[in-house]
Amino acid sequence: MEPIRIAVIGMGKIARDQHLPAIAGNAAFGLAATVSPHDPGVEGVAHHRSLEALLVEGPAVDAVALCTPPQVRYDLAAQALARGVHVFLEKPPGATLAEVAALDDQARKVGVTLFAAWHSRFAAGVAPARAWLAERRVDRVSIIWREDVRVWHPGQAWIWEPGGLGVFDPGINALSIATHILPRPFFLKAATLTIPANRAAPIAAEIEFRDTGGAPILMDLDWRQTGPQSWDIIVETDAGTLKLSNGGAVLALPTGTDHSEDREYPGLYARFATLIQGGRSDVDTDPLRLVADAFLRGRRETSEAFYD
Amino acid sequence: MEPIRIAVIGMGKIARDQHLPAIAGNAAFGLAATVSPHDPGVEGVAHHRSLEALLVEGPAVDAVALCTPPQVRYDLAAQALARGVHVFLEKPPGATLAEVAALDDQARKVGVTLFAAWHSRFAAGVAPARAWLAERRVDRVSIIWREDVRVWHPGQAWIWEPGGLGVFDPGINALSIATHILPRPFFLKAATLTIPANRAAPIAAEIEFRDTGGAPILMDLDWRQTGPQSWDIIVETDAGTLKLSNGGAVLALPTGTDHSEDREYPGLYARFATLIQGGRSDVDTDPLRLVADAFLRGRRETSEAFYD
Repeated sequence: MEPIRIAVIGMGKIARDQHLPAIAGNAAFGLAATVSPHDPGVEGVAHHRSLEALLVEGPAVDAVALCTPPQVRYDLAAQALARGVHVFLEKPPGATLAEVAALDDQARKVGVTLFAAWHSRFAAGVAPARAWLAERRVDRVSIIWREDVRVWHPGQAWIWEPGGLGVFDPGINALSIATHILPRPFFLKAATLTIPANRAAPIAAEIEFRDTGGAPILMDLDWRQTGPQSWDIIVETDAGTLKLSNGGAVLALPTGTDHSEDREYPGLYARFATLIQGGRSDVDTDPLRLVADAFLRGRRETSEAFYD
Repeated sequence: MEPIRIAVIGMGKIARDQHLPAIAGNAAFGLAATVSPHDPGVEGVAHHRSLEALLVEGPAVDAVALCTPPQVRYDLAAQALARGVHVFLEKPPGATLAEVAALDDQARKVGVTLFAAWHSRFAAGVAPARAWLAERRVDRVSIIWREDVRVWHPGQAWIWEPGGLGVFDPGINALSIATHILPRPFFLKAATLTIPANRAAPIAAEIEFRDTGGAPILMDLDWRQTGPQSWDIIVETDAGTLKLSNGGAVLALPTGTDHSEDREYPGLYARFATLIQGGRSDVDTDPLRLVADAFLRGRRETSEAFYD
């Protein structure tokens, strides 16, 4: 089978750190081009300053991976889908739920693959956690996602703008895992969002979800954590406690602890290839829907101004 | 056929003004009970202070209409569905999108009807507007929904709380019409929400949507309008301008204007009966999804404190 000719659009940190190595490591794909208005691209690979220029001037591509901020993703995705090009959407898949639904419709009509990628679902501990929880009664869940925004998002102004999600940008990774591993659906009961006086998006949030069986799911998001960082999900069940830590990489069960190698982006690209080969899409908006619900239903508090 | 025995839960203004007369006017239904912790109910009809008391003590009911504020609607609906009782949800169908999705799942599993009612879709001009627009190219849409909150929601504290939606409580009626009559899906590009310093929900909003064909849809919501009130949707097309006014009751087309009698709630109850008899649900969350997107993506501005 000929490799899928793919272009990477938006050559920021995530593209260079994760997408390019994952594409290079998967024989199903060949990197055909990169697109960025600023970045010089990759030695020996075609480069354009806009997706439009790539689609007009070539080289021909079968697929694009959109690694831009979410606020501009819809137009790029709609443009690619209209040309019959498969689309990989970095998380979150868009700036609004309705635009992602419109892309999903468009992809169905055109008959190409749209993939809303949630990289944390491919962390090593997630699949075994899901399998273990499928047979348990969940009594209580704690999600603790506390990190230092100055380390992980230095100077990223877009992340603080409306649509940039603020602390929900990492928090949605936790929700992508929780919606995947917990056996029952859950929804928001109450939330408090803490927003710096000089910013539009939250720097911290406390959220109380409840699953349809009545179990509480408490989420603690904070971007002001210096020192050790926390990306943990703790699930208390009738058969003891499960703990997923390091963002899903380390799984501790009552029977022991498992550490595995990071395979998130290789896992995503393997899935994207399978979807394209099978003529299918995968557009799960449940994590983004929970975030939208937090903005819709949450109470807001203002905190001191935040400077990078 | 025996009438559907229905209980009205939450005996506020909307229940007395609209639900009771519509039920009385539809032979498919018989009012079996009312529920309210405060209201004395209706002469000659069983009354309980809680849904739980009704379900335990009777009389038996086949269906409930939930007319409470949205923040408490999920628990009531889940309780009724668990007993095999059909559920009519006033708009908005819940305080979050995920809870409505959970109810939809539950209704499917139990095999009963869940109806997310959007009363404005049953305004007299809406069905002919939809039919007329189906064959047009839409170039531009203006939605102007300006009313005096002191007249329409006097002292309703819940409407200003998180989950109460503020000016989107009437605004969602406009969105329920627009999503129904416009031929292409649309999504939010930008929004500004104006929130009084002493409240949690917006008193005004300006929203810019765009449909998948690129047509702008501009929405102007304001709760500070004294004097004449505006509930208008203006659609410019390749065949001239359509104007729906009075909240959908009056339809003006290039060929003339049509005024019809208000039949919103009778229309809703006729639809609810048809759904129950056909063993189907109707749970369209598109209007609420657009509102959630506005809270997710919108920029917030603070305005002077508002007192009733």
